[in-house]
Amino acid sequence: MELRPRVEVTPSQQQDIARLIAGETSTNDSILDQHGRDESAFPPVKPSLVVTPYSTEDVSKVLAYCNTHHIPVVAFGAGSSLEGHVLPIHGGVSLDMTHMNKILEVRSEDLLVKVQPGVHRVALNENLNKIGLFFSVDPGADATLGGMAATGAAGTTTVRYGSMRENVLALEAVLADGTIIHVGRETRKLSAGYDLTRLIVGSEGTLAVITELTLRVHGIPEKMAAATVIFPNLAAGVEAATTIVRSGVAIARCEFLDAICIKNVNARDGLSLSESPTLLFEFHGSKQGVEEDALIVGEIVKEFGGSEFSWSTEEGARRKLWQARHNAYWASLVAHPGQRIVTTDTAVPLSRLAEAVAVAEEIFGASRFPYSILGHVADGNFHCFVMLDPNDPKQHDEIRELTHQLTNRILAMGGTCTGEHGIGLGKIDDLVNETGRAGVSVMRSIKSTLDPNNILNPGKIFHK
Amino acid sequence: MELRPRVEVTPSQQQDIARLIAGETSTNDSILDQHGRDESAFPPVKPSLVVTPYSTEDVSKVLAYCNTHHIPVVAFGAGSSLEGHVLPIHGGVSLDMTHMNKILEVRSEDLLVKVQPGVHRVALNENLNKIGLFFSVDPGADATLGGMAATGAAGTTTVRYGSMRENVLALEAVLADGTIIHVGRETRKLSAGYDLTRLIVGSEGTLAVITELTLRVHGIPEKMAAATVIFPNLAAGVEAATTIVRSGVAIARCEFLDAICIKNVNARDGLSLSESPTLLFEFHGSKQGVEEDALIVGEIVKEFGGSEFSWSTEEGARRKLWQARHNAYWASLVAHPGQRIVTTDTAVPLSRLAEAVAVAEEIFGASRFPYSILGHVADGNFHCFVMLDPNDPKQHDEIRELTHQLTNRILAMGGTCTGEHGIGLGKIDDLVNETGRAGVSVMRSIKSTLDPNNILNPGKIFHK
Repeated sequence: MELRPRVEVTPSQQQDIARLIAGETSTNDSILDQHGRDESAFPPVKPSLVVTPYSTEDVSKVLAYCNTHHIPVVAFGAGSSLEGHVLPIHGGVSLDMTHMNKILEVRSEDLLVKVQPGVHRVALNENLNKIGLFFSVDPGADATLGGMAATGAAGTTTVRYGSMRENVLALEAVLADGTIIHVGRETRKLSAGYDLTRLIVGSEGTLAVITELTLRVHGIPEKMAAATVIFPNLAAGVEAATTIVRSGVAIARCEFLDAICIKNVNARDGLSLSESPTLLFEFHGSKQGVEEDALIVGEIVKEFGGSEFSWSTEEGARRKLWQARHNAYWASLVAHPGQRIVTTDTAVPLSRLAEAVAVAEEIFGASRFPYSILGHVADGNFHCFVMLDPNDPKQHDEIRELTHQLTNRILAMGGTCTGEHGIGLGKIDDLVNETGRAGVSVMRSIKSTLDPNNILNPGKIFHK
Repeated sequence: MELRPRVEVTPSQQQDIARLIAGETSTNDSILDQHGRDESAFPPVKPSLVVTPYSTEDVSKVLAYCNTHHIPVVAFGAGSSLEGHVLPIHGGVSLDMTHMNKILEVRSEDLLVKVQPGVHRVALNENLNKIGLFFSVDPGADATLGGMAATGAAGTTTVRYGSMRENVLALEAVLADGTIIHVGRETRKLSAGYDLTRLIVGSEGTLAVITELTLRVHGIPEKMAAATVIFPNLAAGVEAATTIVRSGVAIARCEFLDAICIKNVNARDGLSLSESPTLLFEFHGSKQGVEEDALIVGEIVKEFGGSEFSWSTEEGARRKLWQARHNAYWASLVAHPGQRIVTTDTAVPLSRLAEAVAVAEEIFGASRFPYSILGHVADGNFHCFVMLDPNDPKQHDEIRELTHQLTNRILAMGGTCTGEHGIGLGKIDDLVNETGRAGVSVMRSIKSTLDPNNILNPGKIFHK
C-alpha cells in the first residue's frame, strides 16, 4: 500500500505549525494512537503529528504550510468511518476538526442551519428537536457533520429525505494550498456554475478540508409511526420491501435485519423481538396519513408471508425499535467479544436486491466467518457484518477477498461497490472495475489539478 | 464578447467529419439559422457547420476531430434555453443531438429509464404514463433530456421530487478528446468516488457531451389534487406560500403568478381566472392524504387574506390549470406581439422571498419595460418576464443592467443569480460575484483540465 515513504513531521516543522495557528499540536503517543484508527478492520497507523485547528484561518495556514513542505494531511472527526478513510497511511498530519464544533446559525424560517464540521449529528438534533426541527441524515454512528459530508453519508432516512448530497446546501472549504472557497448557496435551488458542493461531498478529504456546512433541515412531522413485520425467509422480506417502494407509499424508513441481527440486538438490549428476518418501517406525516400508510404496508406484507405485523405511533416504542436497529452494529460486536467487523456496503437496482442478498448469503455462508445481513432495503443498499479476529491479519485479507467476489457479482447486476461508506482504502480497485479507467482517470485529473502535491488524504480513493 | 476569432469549419474539414461518422452534416443556411438561436433575447449567431450524430461513436469521433483542429462544439437539443447556452458565439460546430432520441429502456421494476439525450420530456412522459409512471422534472418548455441535464433544469415539481441533479442517476458522456465515460450507477444510492454525474449535470456542455441518461422515475400517485387561491397583493401570496412550506405540508407543486400573468393566460387560453395574484398548488398522495393537505392549505391561506380558495381532484380541471401555468411564458409573448422576453431567475432563502419579490417590483416597476412576475415560490425561486423589442439592441442591454441590479440585491440576501436557468452567456460576471474568484477559479481549473483546448461550448459560464 505504501508506495511512497512515510512522512514524519520534524520537530522544527511542528514548532512552525504551532506558531502559525491559534490551535493545538500534539505528538503525545496516546493522542497519535487515537487518530490512527477508525471503525474499519484495517490495522491502525499513527500520524506523525495531530493538529487541532480552532478556526478556518488555522486550517488554511496548516494546509498552506503542509502543501509547501509536502506533508500529508488527513482530516479527522469522530473516527467512525468504515473504510479506513482517516488512517494516515503516509504519515504526516491528522487534522482533528473536533474543536470546530459550534452550531453557528439555526434559521428555522429558512429550514437551514450553519455548523462547523466538528459538530456531531446527535448534538445537532438535540438542539433542533427543541424547536420542532430535525436533520435527517442518520448513518447510525454519531459521526461529525464534516465527516458525514466528506464521506457522502446516508443512512436509514435516505429513502425519504436523501443523503448528505441532497442535504448539504453550501460549504466553506480549504483547498490544498490554503485557499478558502465558498461553494453552494443558502437557496433550495441553484444552477450557478459547476456543482462544487457535490464534488466536495463524498470526496473523502482528498480535494479540500470542509470548515463550515450549510445544511437543510426539516420540520418534525406532525405524526410518526413505526411498524415491524417478520418473514419466513430473507428473500420474502426483501421482495416485500421492494414491492412497497414501487407502490409509492411514502415510507420514511424501511430497514431489513436478518434473524442473527435480531438475536444479537435482543441479547444486547434485553428485547424480545421474534428472531426471524424482520422489516422495520417508519412513516412520517399527518395522523390520518401515517395510519393509511401503515395499513397499506400491512396489506402488502401479507402477500409475501409477512406475519406479526404491528404498528404504533407511541413515541417510546418507536424510539426503542429504531435504537435497536442502530445498535445492530454494536450488538454484533458484543456477541463476538474481541472481534472486529468488516462491513460490506453494496447497492443494486431494486429488482436485483433479493438476488444480491442471496449472493451475499452464498458467499459468506460458505466461509468460516460469522456474519449477519441488514440494510436500507428501500434503497437497494445492504450490509453484511462479517466478524474477524483482529489479531489474525490473514482473516482480514480473506474477508476482503470474499467482499471483492461479492462486489464483482454486484457490479454485474448494475450495482455499486459502495452505497454510502465510500471507497477509502478498501475499494480502490473496485472503483476502477465499477466506473472504468476513463471515469476514474477524470477523477484523478481533478484531484491532481486541485491538489498537485497530493497532500490531502493521499492513498484514499486512488492508489499512491 | 468575442475575444477570440470566430472559427469557420473549412469545406475540407466538413468532408473529413462527414466521412468519419454515420450521421449528417449541413451548411444549409436555414439549418445554420435554426441552430443559431434559443429562447433568450441574445442576438442569433450561426454556427459554421451543423453535425447531427447518430450514435455515441459519432459524437466521440466528431469531438476527437474538433479537439485536434481546435474547432468549438456546442451541443444543441430543443433550443429552449434561456441564457444563450446554445449560441455558437465562437463559430464552429453545432452538434444537433435530436437524432439520438430513443428511449432505450423502461425499467418499471427499478423505477428508472435509460434514454438518449435527444428524447423530449413530453414524449418520455407520454410513454411512461401508459404504464403508471412519470418523470418529474418539468421546466415548462418541452426541452430535451440531454439539454435539461446539461442546464441542471428544475421546474414546478422540484419542491417534492427534486431537480435534474436529484433525478439523473447515471450518464454516458463524451469528453473533449473523444473519450467515452460512464459515470453514476443504476442504484438509488452511490458513494463510489467523486460525483462526476452531478459535475456534468449543470455544466452547460462545457465539460462533456451527454450521450445517454439513466433517470429516476416515479409511480403516478394514487390521487392528485389541484388548488387555487387569490390574494389582495403579491406580498401576501408569497408569505402564505413560504408559511405552507415551513408547515411541512407535502406539496408537490406551489406556483405563484401575478395578476398580469393571469390576465395574459386568460387572454391566450380563453380562461376566466380571477386576475389577482394567485397561488396554484398540487398535492400528490392517497385520496385521504391529498384531501387533508388541501384543507390544511385552505386554512393557512386564509390567515394571509387568501380568498376564492378552491380545490379539485378532477383530472381535466387539474390539467387545464397547470397548462395555464406552463403557458404563462407563451401567453406573455402573445400579449406583446413581436416582442421577446428576458427571463430573470433569482432564488433566495425562503424568509427573504417576499422582500426579494418587492425588490424586483421596485426595479422593473420603475423601468419602461412591461413585466410580470411568477415563480416556484416553495423553493424561493422566481422569474420576471421582461418584454423587449428585439430590433432595438439597446433595450436588451438596458434590461440586462436592471437584471444585474436585481442580482446584486439578491446576492446580498444570500440568494443566487440563477436557481434553474444556468449561467450561459448572461450571468458570467454574476457567477463571480456570487461564488467569489476562488470558487470560480476551481471551476475554471476543472474546465481546463478536462477540455484543455476549450472546444466545448467556449464562452459560456466563463468568459473567453
